[in-house]
Amino acid sequence: MQANYTRPLDLKRGRVDLSHGAGGRVSAQLVRELFARHFANPALDAGDDGAVLPAPGPGERLVMATDAHVVSPLFFPGGDIGCLSVHGTINDVAVMGARPLYLSASFILEEGYPLADLARIVESMARAAREAGVPVVTGDTKVVEQGKGDGVFISTTGLGALPAGRTLSGNQARPGDAILVSGTMGDHGMAIMAQRESLAFDSEIVSDTAALHGLIAQLLEAAPSVRVLRDPTRGGLATTLNEIASQSGVGMVLEEKAIPVREQVDAACELLGLDPLYVANEGKLVVVVPAEHAEAALAALRAHPLGSDAARIGEIVEDANAFVQIRTGFGGKRMVDWLSGEQLPRIC
Amino acid sequence: MQANYTRPLDLKRGRVDLSHGAGGRVSAQLVRELFARHFANPALDAGDDGAVLPAPGPGERLVMATDAHVVSPLFFPGGDIGCLSVHGTINDVAVMGARPLYLSASFILEEGYPLADLARIVESMARAAREAGVPVVTGDTKVVEQGKGDGVFISTTGLGALPAGRTLSGNQARPGDAILVSGTMGDHGMAIMAQRESLAFDSEIVSDTAALHGLIAQLLEAAPSVRVLRDPTRGGLATTLNEIASQSGVGMVLEEKAIPVREQVDAACELLGLDPLYVANEGKLVVVVPAEHAEAALAALRAHPLGSDAARIGEIVEDANAFVQIRTGFGGKRMVDWLSGEQLPRIC
Ligand SMILES: Nc1ncnc2c1ncn2[C@@H]1O[C@H](COP(=O)(O)OP(=O)(O)OP(=O)(O)O)[C@@H](O)[C@H]1O
Ligand SMILES: Nc1ncnc2c1ncn2[C@@H]1O[C@H](COP(=O)(O)OP(=O)(O)OP(=O)(O)O)[C@@H](O)[C@H]1O
Ligand SMILES: [Mg+2]
Ligand SMILES: [Mg+2]
Ligand SMILES: [Mg+2]
Ligand SMILES: [Mg+2]
Ligand SMILES: [Mg+2]
Ligand SMILES: [Mg+2]
Repeated sequence: MQANYTRPLDLKRGRVDLSHGAGGRVSAQLVRELFARHFANPALDAGDDGAVLPAPGPGERLVMATDAHVVSPLFFPGGDIGCLSVHGTINDVAVMGARPLYLSASFILEEGYPLADLARIVESMARAAREAGVPVVTGDTKVVEQGKGDGVFISTTGLGALPAGRTLSGNQARPGDAILVSGTMGDHGMAIMAQRESLAFDSEIVSDTAALHGLIAQLLEAAPSVRVLRDPTRGGLATTLNEIASQSGVGMVLEEKAIPVREQVDAACELLGLDPLYVANEGKLVVVVPAEHAEAALAALRAHPLGSDAARIGEIVEDANAFVQIRTGFGGKRMVDWLSGEQLPRIC
Repeated sequence: MQANYTRPLDLKRGRVDLSHGAGGRVSAQLVRELFARHFANPALDAGDDGAVLPAPGPGERLVMATDAHVVSPLFFPGGDIGCLSVHGTINDVAVMGARPLYLSASFILEEGYPLADLARIVESMARAAREAGVPVVTGDTKVVEQGKGDGVFISTTGLGALPAGRTLSGNQARPGDAILVSGTMGDHGMAIMAQRESLAFDSEIVSDTAALHGLIAQLLEAAPSVRVLRDPTRGGLATTLNEIASQSGVGMVLEEKAIPVREQVDAACELLGLDPLYVANEGKLVVVVPAEHAEAALAALRAHPLGSDAARIGEIVEDANAFVQIRTGFGGKRMVDWLSGEQLPRIC
């Protein structure tokens, strides 16, 4: 019957058009043949306005986190906006100490964007969600006219369960605590920059985008006294440490030579006049832990594939000004300020 | 000290720039002085990567729903993207039968957008959240270059608690059930169209944007046997009914003259060649309820200020083809198909 006829979605040569966002027959088809097909899970498959989900266990609290993703380019060495939007939100849930359980995903598509590329993004997203064990249970799709968007924007929201008695927060750092990082700094941001600028070294630097909840679970088991976890994304390590210092009302002293940075990242930063401490990461952790458990925490990080380059990089000190300082290779000390202005637009 | 100096946000003459999305000092300032100031609540104020929230009561399940909002223009008669993004997501949680509890909000801002207008949007959003009793507990802010966005896009995700034993779903409609709507059809879409086209009648048609959880609570108390609730947004009543018919594997027969449509909306639709059954609503409900409880449900809707024009518009019938049909004023019957193609881009 004519009324029910719809041409199948042309995932090879088709392009996003306004009808994909109109909420009618063509929208339903896009959800069915692309999104729901790849994200497949019982809550999403029900096809209702919201997903019905089991609540967390007794005594547990919820953790909710959200991020919009507007990275450009959409595909970069080591990842794409699809897996990035899964990893980024899982990480914000996981650094609160919670087990990530569910994701929502809302898409803003630009008219004319190739469906084939959208399909690659959705597949990557579905793979990341599957590997992390955190399904996309509900979604939304809107389309804006050509020139009013930029290909694909994805907002994800994550929901997790926080075990009773666990409190991780940026306000928990105390003088004497050790500061650790789970690996090398600046890989994600420099992978994007290299791709954008078509630099000669572009194939050598790869984004670190990864879901950190497995690493965090291992860390918290070995060192349950951990006080602060945070993922040093936009603004880099420098800004994340300043946030924690402000929230806790403490100072920090870092050892410059202890901070792990890949040689190629260092070289690329040099070339572009950037400081790796301000460059975004998407698969790294900052850990603040009482000094007496620092070595146990470090060992736990290093025992995980995502933490093999973990390092102890400094300590929390008393400082009413909440300054972050760094001891340089030459024995001097300088201030490490927040990122000011805009260094690398649309890095995530 | 220089390192800590930041000019205060110029909310009168300032504009969004890329540094507002860079994750550094200026981003933190925008969140503090604009977003967190208006959304203020303990979970958000903690300033961590995710919000820590009490879990729902024993036996309850969770409901999670998300929508991206890309409405154009951003301000329209009866509302703006701010309150719309709160209402829309609350409604998707509430139509599942859940008590809406928390919202997340992620913003994609276009470089150059006036901060004063952004502030109006955030204030409207905060007011809507406060009036609904559903706080914005976590957020995100990204900025894209001029010409890569369109002022402001807002994605909201809602979380609610579903009482034990309650099951509302599009797949629950059964032959013999009555179909109700909570009020007039097409007000939101025609308010946007009138504004866009600067039509003469533009001041008379006002969006119906509203949070429906209060109305729904009253309805479910009076008629706990309600089987399906849905908000007929994009695609309008016609598309929403087709979705339910498909999910439940049933047909529907509607009475054209029973469907409430405001006179001005009807006239505006006539003028633009639109059918009010395909025009979006943002504060209306579709209800499927066993016939024996239809009058109780209707009375409960009408007893609420948001349901004063509620009407019984048709019934569920057996039909393996899941066709929606309508009896016209002249005694004939015609098919009511899904919205096909694109009628009103960026209506929400
Ligand atoms: N990109 C997507 N990925 C996964 N599921 C999606 C996606 N877009 C929509 N969905 C799912 O499709 C169904 C219909 O979504 P739709 O957005 O039309 O509903 P709605 O939010 O009630 O309507 P509106 O967006 O007009 O308010 C929902 O179950 C939703 O979770
Ligand atoms: N528009 C907003 N409204 C309300 N709160 C916001 C908004 N934008 C950011 N926030 C809050 O500000 C804090 C910092 O957010 P930010 O996005 O910098 O953290 P993040 O997600 O960990 O970093 P990234 O976005 O780089 O991954 C969080 O507590 C977040 O909830
Ligand atoms: Mg984040
Ligand atoms: Mg974070
Ligand atoms: Mg939706
Ligand atoms: Mg919706
Ligand atoms: Mg809905
Ligand atoms: Mg964020």
